[in-house]
Amino acid sequence: MVLQAQSITVEAPGTVANVGSGFDIFAFAMERPADRVRLCLNDRQEVRIIKNIGRGAEGLPLDAQTNIAGFVLLKLREHLRTDQGFDVTVEKGIPPGSGLGSSAASAVASVLAANILLGEPLSREELIPIAMQGELLASGVAHADNVAPALIGGFILIGGYDPLDIIRLPIPSSLWSAVAHPGIEVRTEDARRILPKEVSLRDAVRQWGNVGGLVATLCLGPLERLGKYTTDYIVEPIRATLIPGFHDVKQAALSAGALGCSISGSGPSVFALCLSQDRATQVAAAMIAAFEKHRLTANGYVSQINPSGARVIDHAAG
Amino acid sequence: MVLQAQSITVEAPGTVANVGSGFDIFAFAMERPADRVRLCLNDRQEVRIIKNIGRGAEGLPLDAQTNIAGFVLLKLREHLRTDQGFDVTVEKGIPPGSGLGSSAASAVASVLAANILLGEPLSREELIPIAMQGELLASGVAHADNVAPALIGGFILIGGYDPLDIIRLPIPSSLWSAVAHPGIEVRTEDARRILPKEVSLRDAVRQWGNVGGLVATLCLGPLERLGKYTTDYIVEPIRATLIPGFHDVKQAALSAGALGCSISGSGPSVFALCLSQDRATQVAAAMIAAFEKHRLTANGYVSQINPSGARVIDHAAG
Repeated sequence: MVLQAQSITVEAPGTVANVGSGFDIFAFAMERPADRVRLCLNDRQEVRIIKNIGRGAEGLPLDAQTNIAGFVLLKLREHLRTDQGFDVTVEKGIPPGSGLGSSAASAVASVLAANILLGEPLSREELIPIAMQGELLASGVAHADNVAPALIGGFILIGGYDPLDIIRLPIPSSLWSAVAHPGIEVRTEDARRILPKEVSLRDAVRQWGNVGGLVATLCLGPLERLGKYTTDYIVEPIRATLIPGFHDVKQAALSAGALGCSISGSGPSVFALCLSQDRATQVAAAMIAAFEKHRLTANGYVSQINPSGARVIDHAAG
Repeated sequence: MVLQAQSITVEAPGTVANVGSGFDIFAFAMERPADRVRLCLNDRQEVRIIKNIGRGAEGLPLDAQTNIAGFVLLKLREHLRTDQGFDVTVEKGIPPGSGLGSSAASAVASVLAANILLGEPLSREELIPIAMQGELLASGVAHADNVAPALIGGFILIGGYDPLDIIRLPIPSSLWSAVAHPGIEVRTEDARRILPKEVSLRDAVRQWGNVGGLVATLCLGPLERLGKYTTDYIVEPIRATLIPGFHDVKQAALSAGALGCSISGSGPSVFALCLSQDRATQVAAAMIAAFEKHRLTANGYVSQINPSGARVIDHAAG
């Protein structure tokens, strides 16, 4: 059988996981930065990584078993019981180790692209567990908090894993995020290793008051109260030690008018929530300036919550 | 000055605190059982407990410093800088040590009654911290989770204590509670003493997934999902040891069609959430029958969520 030459490019956005109080359960999708994955069908029944380009791509493997975009395609092929071959080009817009869901974005773009080329046998929701396999490869834990919003967009609550329970929370249009990514790398594995196995019941209770408050405020308002509920008593105090100048950056964000500010995922990126684009722009600038005082050059991103997640950029049938 | 003879009777409802996953942060008000407090102004500048009547009243003190209804009146007088005297009659409908907010209901009925007799210098929200002083006397912790819904009704989330942050969650009209109160007493102090100081981070994360899910489901639906989010990984497994037959009672409730079931407050009462009055009636009967197999006689209560809390029963000016 001779296959039609067919190709597609899918873009998947960066994501902010944890959102302060919701370690491993909250995350939202940004508009940018984003990864792109281009797939072409091949007739060799092989998943081949053609090249990795873009930010931080030089360190990524060309072996499909260890390249996240390739690995999740192998998992998708197993799931669908197909030996369809793909040529894969990964264009990184989200630097690995940034705390912005870099591995999740590559995994999501790859499986969504393949699913479309194969005639959409699975829904986006059904692709989440496949893309989560990439997180297992990347960090040793098959977590869903970056994958889910990268695939379906929005502000997500992971209600549980057994079964996987994804809840979309309302996303007020006035809500903007400001993110500053300093030029150091924090490995997710390292950021997990330093976490305590046990936490005090007192802190756990304070934390779930904030988790409940954050969900209630997204659903019911007023958004001005959101910042308090991003307060993280458990993970931020420990992971902050991995980010030079974190406390100054957070203070700069709050002084510039952010509702709240914490570490994005496992860091080193820092996010803030704001009530307008102008405010988010000012807050991003303030965070970048604060990192500079600690001799770190940071990139800033200002974005509304991305409501729809990964999207097709180019789709050619020939 | 000769005072007008004036009296009032206020009823404050029982409350279900924790609601499974939300230890110390969730609670809702029932329609019944309820405590009643009757106050008459006196001109002796004294708070006098005239009598305690009703269920479990025989063990309650007649000293205003140690009787909760009297103690909170003394606190209210301090707060308002008045030496107005009150004659107090407490009519217990909620047995002490039932886990149904017995002390909170007496405190709430007492302060609300006095506030009305004094011309309503404080709002209901402002009375919450005063009534919380009664909880400090009763159990050594000034918690708000029973007091707040007893005073203002509804399904309450305590977002935090510093400052006190009370969030009213939506209460769907189809939501009913079934409660079974077995004839044993669990002291709140004892139920707190057996709790661990530390919990595993893994359980804490699972718990706050449920806390977030419960808030999201009350706000967004569908209510059928509510039961899962009442699951308590941390407190219920420990406190269940204080309630003979708890696991059989819970299984009976779920088999009879309850969405979810757990311990009310510090127990021994067990609550279940249901989607109709008929179902809640069946579930209450099933729980009572299960307690009977463990040789415990239980009382049952079936109720919607009480939207308004404490209410004036009788108000006479002479």
